[in-house]
Amino acid sequence: MALRIALGLEYDGRCFCGWQTQPGGCAIQDAVERALAQVHGEPVRTIVAGRTDAGVHATSQVLHFDARHARPLSAWQRGTNAHLPEGVAVLWARAVAEDFHARFAAQERTYRYYLLNHPVRPALMAGRVGWVHAPLDLAAMQAASKHLLGLHDFTSFRAAECQARTPFRDLRVASVEKQGHYVIFEFRANAFLHHQVRNMVGALVWVGLGRRLPVWLAEVLEARDRRQAAATFSGDGLYLTGVAYGCEWGLPTTENRLPTLP
Amino acid sequence: MALRIALGLEYDGRCFCGWQTQPGGCAIQDAVERALAQVHGEPVRTIVAGRTDAGVHATSQVLHFDARHARPLSAWQRGTNAHLPEGVAVLWARAVAEDFHARFAAQERTYRYYLLNHPVRPALMAGRVGWVHAPLDLAAMQAASKHLLGLHDFTSFRAAECQARTPFRDLRVASVEKQGHYVIFEFRANAFLHHQVRNMVGALVWVGLGRRLPVWLAEVLEARDRRQAAATFSGDGLYLTGVAYGCEWGLPTTENRLPTLP
Repeated sequence: MALRIALGLEYDGRCFCGWQTQPGGCAIQDAVERALAQVHGEPVRTIVAGRTDAGVHATSQVLHFDARHARPLSAWQRGTNAHLPEGVAVLWARAVAEDFHARFAAQERTYRYYLLNHPVRPALMAGRVGWVHAPLDLAAMQAASKHLLGLHDFTSFRAAECQARTPFRDLRVASVEKQGHYVIFEFRANAFLHHQVRNMVGALVWVGLGRRLPVWLAEVLEARDRRQAAATFSGDGLYLTGVAYGCEWGLPTTENRLPTLP
Repeated sequence: MALRIALGLEYDGRCFCGWQTQPGGCAIQDAVERALAQVHGEPVRTIVAGRTDAGVHATSQVLHFDARHARPLSAWQRGTNAHLPEGVAVLWARAVAEDFHARFAAQERTYRYYLLNHPVRPALMAGRVGWVHAPLDLAAMQAASKHLLGLHDFTSFRAAECQARTPFRDLRVASVEKQGHYVIFEFRANAFLHHQVRNMVGALVWVGLGRRLPVWLAEVLEARDRRQAAATFSGDGLYLTGVAYGCEWGLPTTENRLPTLP
């Protein structure tokens, strides 16, 4: 009888070639499955909540897998960490009901985008934050982001290679805030299309630069045409910061272990 | 006639083998001098405010150099950045009086140490923050840090290889704060001995773990004996966050471009 285990993960997207397993073994999935196999004593296949692209980070990714052999939860958490490279760590492990599914049971995903808005490119946070050197109009981006809220056909913000069956997504949070030299975008939805967050950030940055008016976001959305929107923005500053499940699964609440500065 | 130029720098210590020039050219000084030589058209020799160790980061390092050929400040700043690797960037450039000296004119240095206090090792911030998995007693560390304040002989916190002429330093700020899962130490002094901050952090962590009482810091200081203190703490979470000069030099005020999280 298989035992279903859920794990919470933190990772630095720069250290890997994206979530999804690759022939060369450079993916986060490959690293995690290799480490789990060490603990399990035989291969393990994982299912993840959000298959992040190359370079995209996670403060709170969630996955599940089925184990044939029972191990203490501390083995799945600390034991796995001992076999993982430094750019990825298991935050927690829980035994879950066999009908739990990290991807299909997820009710909501939250992504955050950190954009350095400063004349000088990032050095300490290179690859961990996006960058725009020209000053951005925060109020204009905030006004524009409101047009994205709600249940919409997000075809205009969808990558050509997106494999989702429907382009409809329910965007519940779309916020833009300034903190120090950073503009921080937060998006929460039932799910996201491929490149949707990066494409929304790209369009909002055009508004912030004054190339378009805030209402342009509504027009782009309405057009249902990827060519109407801006270019896909860099993945450098993108973080999966939360995956929400019903409380019946008993999973830990999300925590963000990035530092806060005084 | 030489023109003296001051630069502000941000860098990720992980990308280099410390500040000071090395035969293999892996130091931050090597990268910066190579880039400046490209802009200048001939070699440039830099003098820095704080020669940080391997793995130590800077949000605000300051250096000066003498140029034989005049270049616009934008060339020294943006032009140099175009020749620098991604882990280091020039934040600003200023022409300064010929008696300015990045090291000797510095009145105060500030270092900050970011320590993740969480059962799970850092992944996203691996190498950029220190880590202690056992819970730390904040109040005890705060009480202990007060014993370090003032003008003291810091021999007990000085590395054997330290080349300073005197072990006396005037410690003006020694604060310990908790923010989320982090303990953040801040130290400000006229100058620091080699490994002084890492050694003070190591001793404060022992107090935080309950291995010593807060008053032990006073005893260690009084002993003037390196063997009385704790082991040198990891450099991973250490940042040079500011160098203060008299306002007569007209240098920009320090800014910290690490992100802040909501």
